[in-house]
Formats: sequence, C-alpha cells, structure tokens
Amino acid sequence: MNLGVIGLGMMGRAMAQTLLRAGHRVTVWNRTRGRAEELQAEGALIADVPADACKGEAVITCLADDDAVKAVVFGENGLAGARADGCIHVSMSTISLSLNRQLSQAHGETGQRFVAAPVFGRPDTIAAAQLLIVAAGDAEAIAQCQPIFDALGRRTIVVGADPIAAPMVKLVGNFLLASAVESLAEAMALLRKSGTDPQACLDVLTDTLFAAPAYKNYARLMLEQNYDPGFRLALGLKDVGLVLDAAASFDVPMPVASLARDRLLAGVARGHQDKDLSALALVCAEDAGLMNDK
Amino acid sequence: MNLGVIGLGMMGRAMAQTLLRAGHRVTVWNRTRGRAEELQAEGALIADVPADACKGEAVITCLADDDAVKAVVFGENGLAGARADGCIHVSMSTISLSLNRQLSQAHGETGQRFVAAPVFGRPDTIAAAQLLIVAAGDAEAIAQCQPIFDALGRRTIVVGADPIAAPMVKLVGNFLLASAVESLAEAMALLRKSGTDPQACLDVLTDTLFAAPAYKNYARLMLEQNYDPGFRLALGLKDVGLVLDAAASFDVPMPVASLARDRLLAGVARGHQDKDLSALALVCAEDAGLMNDK
Amino acid sequence: MNLGVIGLGMMGRAMAQTLLRAGHRVTVWNRTRGRAEELQAEGALIADVPADACKGEAVITCLADDDAVKAVVFGENGLAGARADGCIHVSMSTISLSLNRQLSQAHGETGQRFVAAPVFGRPDTIAAAQLLIVAAGDAEAIAQCQPIFDALGRRTIVVGADPIAAPMVKLVGNFLLASAVESLAEAMALLRKSGTDPQACLDVLTDTLFAAPAYKNYARLMLEQNYDPGFRLALGLKDVGLVLDAAASFDVPMPVASLARDRLLAGVARGHQDKDLSALALVCAEDAGLMNDK
Amino acid sequence: MNLGVIGLGMMGRAMAQTLLRAGHRVTVWNRTRGRAEELQAEGALIADVPADACKGEAVITCLADDDAVKAVVFGENGLAGARADGCIHVSMSTISLSLNRQLSQAHGETGQRFVAAPVFGRPDTIAAAQLLIVAAGDAEAIAQCQPIFDALGRRTIVVGADPIAAPMVKLVGNFLLASAVESLAEAMALLRKSGTDPQACLDVLTDTLFAAPAYKNYARLMLEQNYDPGFRLALGLKDVGLVLDAAASFDVPMPVASLARDRLLAGVARGHQDKDLSALALVCAEDAGLMNDK
Repeated sequence: MNLGVIGLGMMGRAMAQTLLRAGHRVTVWNRTRGRAEELQAEGALIADVPADACKGEAVITCLADDDAVKAVVFGENGLAGARADGCIHVSMSTISLSLNRQLSQAHGETGQRFVAAPVFGRPDTIAAAQLLIVAAGDAEAIAQCQPIFDALGRRTIVVGADPIAAPMVKLVGNFLLASAVESLAEAMALLRKSGTDPQACLDVLTDTLFAAPAYKNYARLMLEQNYDPGFRLALGLKDVGLVLDAAASFDVPMPVASLARDRLLAGVARGHQDKDLSALALVCAEDAGLMNDK
Repeated sequence: MNLGVIGLGMMGRAMAQTLLRAGHRVTVWNRTRGRAEELQAEGALIADVPADACKGEAVITCLADDDAVKAVVFGENGLAGARADGCIHVSMSTISLSLNRQLSQAHGETGQRFVAAPVFGRPDTIAAAQLLIVAAGDAEAIAQCQPIFDALGRRTIVVGADPIAAPMVKLVGNFLLASAVESLAEAMALLRKSGTDPQACLDVLTDTLFAAPAYKNYARLMLEQNYDPGFRLALGLKDVGLVLDAAASFDVPMPVASLARDRLLAGVARGHQDKDLSALALVCAEDAGLMNDK
Repeated sequence: MNLGVIGLGMMGRAMAQTLLRAGHRVTVWNRTRGRAEELQAEGALIADVPADACKGEAVITCLADDDAVKAVVFGENGLAGARADGCIHVSMSTISLSLNRQLSQAHGETGQRFVAAPVFGRPDTIAAAQLLIVAAGDAEAIAQCQPIFDALGRRTIVVGADPIAAPMVKLVGNFLLASAVESLAEAMALLRKSGTDPQACLDVLTDTLFAAPAYKNYARLMLEQNYDPGFRLALGLKDVGLVLDAAASFDVPMPVASLARDRLLAGVARGHQDKDLSALALVCAEDAGLMNDK
Repeated sequence: MNLGVIGLGMMGRAMAQTLLRAGHRVTVWNRTRGRAEELQAEGALIADVPADACKGEAVITCLADDDAVKAVVFGENGLAGARADGCIHVSMSTISLSLNRQLSQAHGETGQRFVAAPVFGRPDTIAAAQLLIVAAGDAEAIAQCQPIFDALGRRTIVVGADPIAAPMVKLVGNFLLASAVESLAEAMALLRKSGTDPQACLDVLTDTLFAAPAYKNYARLMLEQNYDPGFRLALGLKDVGLVLDAAASFDVPMPVASLARDRLLAGVARGHQDKDLSALALVCAEDAGLMNDK
C-alpha cells in the first residue's frame, strides 16, 4: 500500500519502520524534520508538509496529544484541507473522545473517511508485529486498512462504527491499568514495611485471581525495582486526564481515576515523569516513609 | 484424620461436609447448636463446647470475624485452655493480622501449633475441592494438614513460617479485588452513560491485558446486572477494614483502600449489604445519576 | 464614568444596574440582546457588538466561562481589536489563570490595560454595594477603577501587579469554600444518622473555632435544608475545575479539590446542578442512606 | 471542692495545677508515679491506685486514649469498682463514642454519675482559664461540676443529657479542623509553587470569608513554617480515626475524613508525628515536589 505516517516519536517511528519492512511504500512527516530523515535510509519518502503525506491509500497519525493532532489536521497544509480522495485517516495514538468525534465529523463533511484505531503495546511490540489494535469507524474503511493492522499487530478487534467506541476502549483500558498499578504500588509498600516477602505474595496472586498480563508485568517491574520507561508516567497522567475529561463530559464521577491522577501528578512533581508507570511504587514508598533514609 | 470444625456458616458448613465426604472423622461446634445438628445426618459428631472439637489431629476455625475467633479460643471452654496435645489449630477464615500474631504466640506459649490457612473461593468451590489455600506456619504442621487441604482445594501454596504471611496474601488479594471491582464499576458507569457498548469494551479488555479470573468474573456479573451474593458486599467492607487496620499498624497510607472502603460503606448505607461485591456497580450507577428515574 | 458592561447574567445585570444607579453612564452588551434591552428603561445604552461597549474609560466583563470571555475579546468585533485608547478591561468573573495571563499579555501587546478584579458575593450583595473585590494589575489602572469598585463593593483589596494574583485568591477561596461545605455536609450526615442534634453541635462550632461567614452561612442553609441557588452547585463544579487546572499546570496534587470535584459531579449527575452549593448535603445524605425512604 | 485528677499528661497536669491554684483540694494519680510526685509541692495529694482518686465530689480523667481510660475505670482498683457514692466521673479527654456510651451505662448500673466534658484548647489555654468546654450528661451533675469548669475554661456549653452529644461535638470539631488544615496545606503548596504570595492571599481570605480562629491560626503557622507541637499531628491522626470509627458504626461514608487520615498517616510515616498538625503543609509540599532539593 501507499501510506503516510505522521508523527515519528517512539511509537510512530516503529510503525513506519515495520510498515517499510513489510513492503509498503511509506511517506513520513515529523515536526522536527531530522527524525524523518533518519528513516530515509530504510526507504521512507519525506513529506514537506502534512498534506503531502496523505496522497496514498491511508495516512496514520501517531502524535503526542490533541494539540499535535489538531495542528496537523486543521493547521496550514494540514490533512483537512489537502487530503487526496480516498485517503483514509487512521488515528492510532491516544487522543480525547471529543477530538475523535470532531475528526470524524470534519472528515465526514469533506467526504473523507476516518478510522480510530488506538493500540495497546510498546515500540518493541510493534517491531514484533504484536500490537493489540482496537478499531472503530466505517466497516469498509477498516477492511481496507487490514494490511496495515496485520503488519503491526497480532490482533485487531473491531468494536463498531461509532468512532468513539475505539478510543473509549483505550481510555478505559488505561484507566484500569493506572488503577491496578497504583493498587499494586500500595500493596508493595504494605508488604515491604510489614516485613512480608512481596515476591511470594504477588507470585501467588498474579498466578491465580490476578493472572493477567497487566498484573504480572507491573508486579515484576516493581519487584525488580525497574522503572525504565516502557510507558512513561507522564503519559499515564495524560491518559488518566483524558479519562476524567471524558467522564466529566457525561457527568460521571470516577473517584479512583481522580485518585490515580493525583498520585501520578505527585510522581511528576517529585521528578519521576520520565520513569515508567511502575514508578508509582516510588510514590507509595515515599508516602509510607520507606525512602526516609535516602 | 480426626478433625474438628468450629463455625458452620456457609463456608464452614461446606468444609465440614466435604471433609466428611472425604472420609475424615469430623466433630463440629457452632454457637447456634441447630446448625451443628443439621450435619449429624451426614456423620458429624457434635461438640458441646469448643474445647471438645479439638481432641483430634487438627481443628479448623472458620468464623465471621475476630471477636468470634477470640471467643472460641480464649473464652470459657475455649481452645487455648483445653486443646489436646498435638491438635493443630488451622485458622481458615479471614481475620486480622494482629489476631493471627496473637494466636500464634498464645498457642506457642502452651506448646500448641498454629497454622494460618486462609482461602480464596466460595462455598461451591469447596464442594468441588477447588479452593485456593494459602498456608503459613510450622512446616511440619502444614505437612500434617495436607490431607485436609487436598480434600478442600485444588492447590495449596505455602508462603513461609511467619503466620502473618498467609493472612497478608489474603488481605492484599481482597484489597486488589475491591480496587479492581470498584474500578470496573466506575468504567461501567462511564460506558453506559456515554452510550458505548460495555460488553464490547470489557470483552476486549478482559480477553487481553486484564485476562484474569477476577476481572472476567466481575465484568460478567456487572454486565448481567447480577448481584446475587457470592462474596457479600458487607464482607468486602470488613476485609478492606482489616487491610486498613494492618496498614495503619505499619504507618502505611493506602488511599485506594480508603476510597474502596467509603464506596463499600455507601453500598451498605444504601441497602446493598447482602448483595454481591458486584453491587459496587449500583453505587457507581447511582452516583452517575443512572438510577435517577427509578 | 463612561463604562461598558459585557455579560448580563445575574451578576452582570446587577452590576450594570448598580452602576447606573450610582450615576455612571453604562453601555451594555449581551449575547442575547433581549437581556440588554431590559436595562434600557434604567438608562443603559445598548452596544451592537462587544467592541462598541469599550469606548469609555473602562469595560467590565462578567461572563460565564473562559469560552465566553475569549469570544468577546478575541472574536469578531471583540475587545482585542477595537478597544479605544485608554479603556481599561476589568475582568470581574471567575476565569482560568491561563486566560488571565493570556488577556494580560494580549492587551499589553496592543498598549491596553488589564485589571483582574474577581469578586466574592452574590447578586443581592452587589445591589447593597457589599461585594468583596480582589484586584490585581497596573496600580494606576486600579486607582482609576476605584469609583467602579466603590459603587459595587464594601471593600477592595489590591494584591499586586501580577494579574494572576487576584484570580488565584478567588480560586483558592472557592476551593476552601467547596472543601468546607463538603466537610460540613459529611458532618451533617453523621450527626443526623447518629441521632445527635445537628443544630446544637454546629452552633457550638460556628460560634467558636469556626466562627466565620463561610461556616455560619452554609451550616445555617443545611440546617434549614435550604438549597435555593445563591451560588449554584454547577458553578462550584466549574470553579473547582479551574483550581485543578491551575494546580495541574504547576504539577501540584490537590486531593481535597479532586474529591470535592467528584462530589460536585455526583451532585450534578443526580440532578442538583441548579440548587445551591449547600446541596452537597443532599449528596452526602444520599450516600449515607438517609434518603432511602424517599 | 474535693477532686481527683487521673492522667497527668500535658493537659491533665495543667488541669490539676489550675484547680489547685483555684483553691480546690486535688488528689492525683498517674501510671508513672513520678509525674504525680512533681505536683506534691503545689499541694496535690497522691493516690496509690485510681480508686483512691475518686473519694471526693468528682474525678476527672484526662488520658491519652480509650485503652488508658478502660484500664483506670474497669481495671484492678479502678473507678468502676471503688468509686465513692456521689463522686461524679468527668471525662475530659477525647475518647471514642462507643467508650463514652459504655462508661455511661457502666456507671449508671452502679448508681454513679457520668459527665462527658471534652475540651477545645491547649495546656496554656488551661492555665489562662480559657478552655472551651462542651458538656453532656445529667443536668444536676453538670451543675455540680460548674466550679471545675469555671476554673479551667472561659465558657461551658451544655449540649444535652445524652453523653454522646459532647464527644460528638469534639469529634466533628476535630474533623472540620483536620479538613480545614489539609485544605490550607494544599492551597499553600499551590500558592508557593505558582509564585503567588501566600501571605497576601491568605490574609484576604482569613480576614473575610474564613475569618475564624481555626483558619487564622493555621494559616499563620504555615506562613511562619512553624511546626512546633501545639496539637500533635499524631493526635490529629488518632482523632480522625475516632471520627471514622464513629461514622462506620452508623454506616456513614466520610470521604474527606478518609483522605485526611491518609495524609496524616503519610505525615507520621515521613517522621512528622511529633510536629504540629500544621506539618500537613510539609506533606503537601513534599507531594508537590517543593522539597525535592533538600
């Protein structure tokens, strides 16, 4: 396929590389042009403006936040004005519900198609074609994007035609994750301060009632005191913020999300913003006086 | 084996029946004698006082709370005074860390042995010999109790000699459960109020990142709006209270546990105490105004 | 003075009327022109566009939220483009810190002056010239506005040249208020459910340690079960949201503010949005099961 | 009057001294006899056992917690067994609602009288006869105790015959205080991190809406970064715990109290237990990253 990839952060870059390796023709654009040029050796074409990256069958956006997406879509030389007929906008980063709806409407008005396809996974998950992709939008457009999804992920789940449905799964998933990680972090503090072996306790639980990737992964990271960024704490804060914004727009109180947000904010304030989400264990350890000696 | 079972609530009764069916000789005691007599037809012997139930190789206590355990151990004709030599006290209900320690010390002083062996499961899990049993205490004593554990459970995990270790796993497990269920309940409210299909969303998540029994089970109950008591909400409140007491004794703040306690307390106050823990979905739905019409 | 008033909600309307009665010449503008016309009989002139209201010595904005202020300032025929030389923009409604900063900069660039002067009080407080006004900005500009402040309030406190300083006092004040009202509401629920006389208890406390207008006023409203809107619960939610946004921009967790926001959101979800902030007592009463019978 | 004082901590000692100075005959008892002997030079008589301190017209208990009160009342040579006819038990320290009820019933059964009279104030408040005393119980017994209250306080408020009524006022008061102090601490962190002058902001608020002793006092302490113990943070934690226990006994969720408890617990865990309640400002500052450099 003839594809565009806009946004070459850790995730976008891995997507472009993996799509190139899968044999697709890929035109890339990044605000800082240098990051685009690094991909030339691997066969990527470079777009001068976002609009130039959407002349093929689909253009993927993989950007840090709502503002970045608005800039490339509605800004000068953006997708909204210049998109070639038939080019599908596939939004793969985590953005707000309201922007998803806005994109869907804006593209609809110009006769373009929009697919919301946020993903669960990390850069190395993409290289191994093991992403979990959750897609929503026009069924035919999703079907046309299947080769893209197959190149990047091990599984694509289609959750309906309403483009809100896919980001909602992503937001709810990240909310449950933040809640689970904060809970594990509190449990770790209790286990450590009480002199109980955290490894033995968490092994039992993540092998039985909580035998799920989310729990196994974060329990392991915390036991290893491994805070190397896979999913940055600052991004976790951003995502919980999106959950709370979505919930507020529907008048739904979500106290666990509020609490998780405060803990993530404390983590950022204390200097852990570029560590992994697992660094919530540090926040809880500090709160429990376990770091007093340091 | 020659065993005693003290406490014939739903769990204790199922234990006694299952042990009888497995061929053990079982003497039962219950504060309300009638519940003991119901088991006579199945072969149980009846003890007039708690002390009479601990003349065999082991006596199991399966009681509602700390006060009930203290009464049968330290009260008149209790286990502490009258226990026959060699009879192991196996504590299988969820009680406080501090009482576990107190029992361990008190029995130690009289040369008796104490095994803390709290369980994960429900009455029907016992009948199917499918409990998860977490045991801590003297290794030899645990080994002697193995036939009991084999009759009741599919798996016994020994977490060490410190009797605190086993109830700590149970308390942490129930804390993680309450946190997960409250989080699912908040997510349900958001999904329903936003018009997103909760089934599709939760299917994706409990099939991937959160593919664990705790999440699958409670997501299903909430989707079915099934609040029939398997694990009563009022017991969930008791257990989160025990977690908070344990944490306070070590000066560990656990804000998610505090929040879960407030939500469970609201559930009890609103009349859901005898529904399942899944009724936290009702508390969240009420908070989100989803029940305004009723 | 020759003044403009933009925004004729309950507060803005009372301001315009009071300024007219004090002998000032007042030109008004409101998105819905009808509300402006109602003031013609009292001597107000009507502006066709916002820019027409800022041809005198000062123009007051008193609008519902950030979006409304942005529209009249930066929108077509807005203040930013058309303001006559020397006309001071006096922002008297509660808007975000970031918009205050943006307004200050934008006006600075065009050589205009900006005074942030949020107020504590209600419509009837204005008519009685009893507002508390907190002003920040250029000292000379504030001095020139003193006749306006004297007409509306009993006291003006100048907190510095940084325009952020005044809205910060307002936001912190409304945060402390929301926190105090939620705390009183929880105390009310405890007192009522325990059978203790709330009146006697709150009389003692608001007559001693808590002998402040905020506590006296809201304790009285709750004891009278008076939820008539003086300060609407939905506005309280908006203001706590502004506090949390400001705090997030400086990486400051404010857990009491988060909790207050969730309770206010529950209040809105349950249908109390147009009641007074005192209706937090209803939210707490519902949570405590005191309304089960109704 | 012929009086007893049991418990010679900072508060009890000041009470005994002040009553001696007022001309009363005072017999004291303390678990550590040395503290009693220190008062001999001022004219105090020493009781060998608690029962010996209750042979006059009234005996005051001023003890650290429920356990200490239970020991002197129900323990060997305690008040319950040996109290002389007519000696009124005046409980002036902050103890649980349930122990108040238990004392009232126990004394009632032996024909003794019980007055609950918790106080607001500090040791130096007692010496200046400036305590606020809240009394509940038998009206005649309270009247007989009036000379005691007059010697210690500037004001006695009688809130009814139900002995629960007085400790409830005290618990609610301390809950409102903890909530107000935590809120002020969060506001301080926001003001400091945003570069706004905290003094100017808090001066405005504590001079108007929040012009109450509780706010003025704690705002001043925080602005002075004065954490010298007047009301120890660890005692604040104990009192909020009593509030939550009382609320739980009536099935009343109090989320602000839960949150305050977690913050106080974090304060204790981080080593601030012997500082003043104002040290919640340190907890909030740490959470906001304001102490990162230290």
